[in-house]
Amino acid sequence: MATATVKAPTRQRLIDVAVRLFTQHSFAGTSLQMIANELGITKAAVYHYFRTREELLLAVVEPVLDQLRTIVETAEAQRTRTARAENVLTGFIDIAVRHRGLIFVLASDPGVIDMLRAQQNYGDLINRQLKLLADVDPGPAGPISAAVVLAGVAGAVGPALVDVDENVLRQQLLDVSRRALGLRAPRRPAGTDAK
Amino acid sequence: MATATVKAPTRQRLIDVAVRLFTQHSFAGTSLQMIANELGITKAAVYHYFRTREELLLAVVEPVLDQLRTIVETAEAQRTRTARAENVLTGFIDIAVRHRGLIFVLASDPGVIDMLRAQQNYGDLINRQLKLLADVDPGPAGPISAAVVLAGVAGAVGPALVDVDENVLRQQLLDVSRRALGLRAPRRPAGTDAK
Repeated sequence: MATATVKAPTRQRLIDVAVRLFTQHSFAGTSLQMIANELGITKAAVYHYFRTREELLLAVVEPVLDQLRTIVETAEAQRTRTARAENVLTGFIDIAVRHRGLIFVLASDPGVIDMLRAQQNYGDLINRQLKLLADVDPGPAGPISAAVVLAGVAGAVGPALVDVDENVLRQQLLDVSRRALGLRAPRRPAGTDAK
Repeated sequence: MATATVKAPTRQRLIDVAVRLFTQHSFAGTSLQMIANELGITKAAVYHYFRTREELLLAVVEPVLDQLRTIVETAEAQRTRTARAENVLTGFIDIAVRHRGLIFVLASDPGVIDMLRAQQNYGDLINRQLKLLADVDPGPAGPISAAVVLAGVAGAVGPALVDVDENVLRQQLLDVSRRALGLRAPRRPAGTDAK
């Protein structure tokens, strides 16, 4: 519910700094004052764009959640279980690699998870994503493998592997996730329905 | 460096409540006052055991880190790469399942990770654990698969799969991690050196 409609470089800089500080200090451990200090501006200048830390967090996550929603919906429209899983996996890993620090925060910070759960449809979106991955294996292994892959990808794009090249990281994450889920690499690129 | 040496049921209850509140609100979002309120005692009563939130966190994690250290050292003493990886994996998953909420907090909460990094040998211990898993694959896949498995196991023992039976969770986590790392299940139980 970001009420700020003004678009300015400052707004994007606030978002970038917020992601970095949330990663370093957690959402609960980051104040708007800390964000203002980091940019060398006053807290009043921050208020011009975001009145609360929560409003800033929403501005940070909304575009990423929109991308995730598109990926989940596209995957759900595929005809086979494996095509659905391959689709959502490829899309999620791509988002995770492009928004490294942010995905780590979204997946692991309890303060952020709490706030997102209060958002309409967020929990539903994550559950649909988990189900698409879990359905590869209809036994008890399915949901557990899906949870390991989602948490594992989100954790691996955190601070630890920050020096790994983006393309190498994307390909390796895809390979390890496919092995974990028992998915074979598709002959045709993901996005087509390789029945 | 927990200075409190008094052992009493209250001390353990403080630790248990702390783990639960850290999981719900993050370390930065949990105060000693919140912990006192949860137990229906005064903050002064908390101070009798722990003077700071950091001291309480150390009391929580020290026994778990001691167990992890033993596992890493035992694994490092094995003769083959696969035996070393199998050993550390089995031991870590066992700790993760027995201390579900805590391992999730240790692996994901930025405030906790910061504090642990400042502890002597902690970063070293995690790096040794990652290396034991990464060495299964000497290519670029090794470190990335290791990171996915550690983060994935730690994430999967968080709130999402809280209803899964402990033995099912342990076995499935072991299976998915072996697939992810490219480790075959050993014929002899882990802990022996199945060359």
